[in-house]
Amino acid sequence: MIEIPARRGKAARLLQGQSVKIVNTYGQQVVDTWAFNLAEIGEFMSMEHTRIAIGRIIPVIGDALVTNRRRSILRLVEDTSGGIHDTLIAACDRWRYELLGCATYHDNCSDNLAAALHEFGLVPPETPSPLNLFMNIPIVDGNRIDVLPPVSTPGSFVTLRAEMDCLVAFSACPQDMVPINGAAMMPTAAHFEIIG
Amino acid sequence: MIEIPARRGKAARLLQGQSVKIVNTYGQQVVDTWAFNLAEIGEFMSMEHTRIAIGRIIPVIGDALVTNRRRSILRLVEDTSGGIHDTLIAACDRWRYELLGCATYHDNCSDNLAAALHEFGLVPPETPSPLNLFMNIPIVDGNRIDVLPPVSTPGSFVTLRAEMDCLVAFSACPQDMVPINGAAMMPTAAHFEIIG
Repeated sequence: MIEIPARRGKAARLLQGQSVKIVNTYGQQVVDTWAFNLAEIGEFMSMEHTRIAIGRIIPVIGDALVTNRRRSILRLVEDTSGGIHDTLIAACDRWRYELLGCATYHDNCSDNLAAALHEFGLVPPETPSPLNLFMNIPIVDGNRIDVLPPVSTPGSFVTLRAEMDCLVAFSACPQDMVPINGAAMMPTAAHFEIIG
Repeated sequence: MIEIPARRGKAARLLQGQSVKIVNTYGQQVVDTWAFNLAEIGEFMSMEHTRIAIGRIIPVIGDALVTNRRRSILRLVEDTSGGIHDTLIAACDRWRYELLGCATYHDNCSDNLAAALHEFGLVPPETPSPLNLFMNIPIVDGNRIDVLPPVSTPGSFVTLRAEMDCLVAFSACPQDMVPINGAAMMPTAAHFEIIG
């Protein structure tokens, strides 16, 4: 198992047919997730293209997650976490924490993505809107959104199968100013495993 | 009034404090809408940042639409259209029409954005997920999305006030293969006016 350290990011190559199992080790950690076409980093998993492709806000087992060129890049094949994830909300960034009142630098998922890709000598063309695994953003009355702790439990997991060779990247979200990583507001590590 | 020709895009400079009134001239036309910081095209209106800023999927009168740096760029100040717009769905592109079975080139909002900005000598850094004015994508049971004709009526409009100097761009969506531009699936022109 590879660690996604608390408040940090980590990337890995995933070849077509391989899967990645993302484990919510301590149960309440949101994991921002991205996938880039290994052959062309300008093609990447896109939430706004995926929603219309699957006809849903939140993917379910069997759904393909598609790129900004509308090609399948990952498929959700297992989910023991309760099935609550988010596709609506941007990755946190330094501006998010400044607006929350943080006067000094705060770790954030956007910088974690950049750092994780930097280990592969790559620069993300932007911070794509992530698949926020385990993140609980219910839509109330068809419009209002709420920010709640995850419903996932320790050791629960999601498995994503690669539909093309890709670079996947994860960030163990460092958000500790709202209860998105649990009521304790204490970000933790998570883990992943490449299968196949 | 400036025309957004049927199936085409059009951009305009909008200075801080000026407003743009977007009129649904024939009543059933979706208008994909973007805004870029005039001083730095890499900063642009972002739906994934706006949703968490306003706590809603669909902006209402008074809401600020924010950029990928979480700064207000436009504010919704008037809306006579029934208040149904979309922030969830990507702009259509050639891949969308290929998947719908179109064997030849089909006009699309992504290319319309690029053409509209080209008139200003600019290249969009990407196709940001647009504010789809008048587009009716209800969320059913908190998860499933539907694709319905607009609820807007002929001559109804939305007014957006600039919170920073920006370049706004519009596309009269050329979608004629699903009933997103009305049950007749007949894209039309729309119009806009700069005020102030």
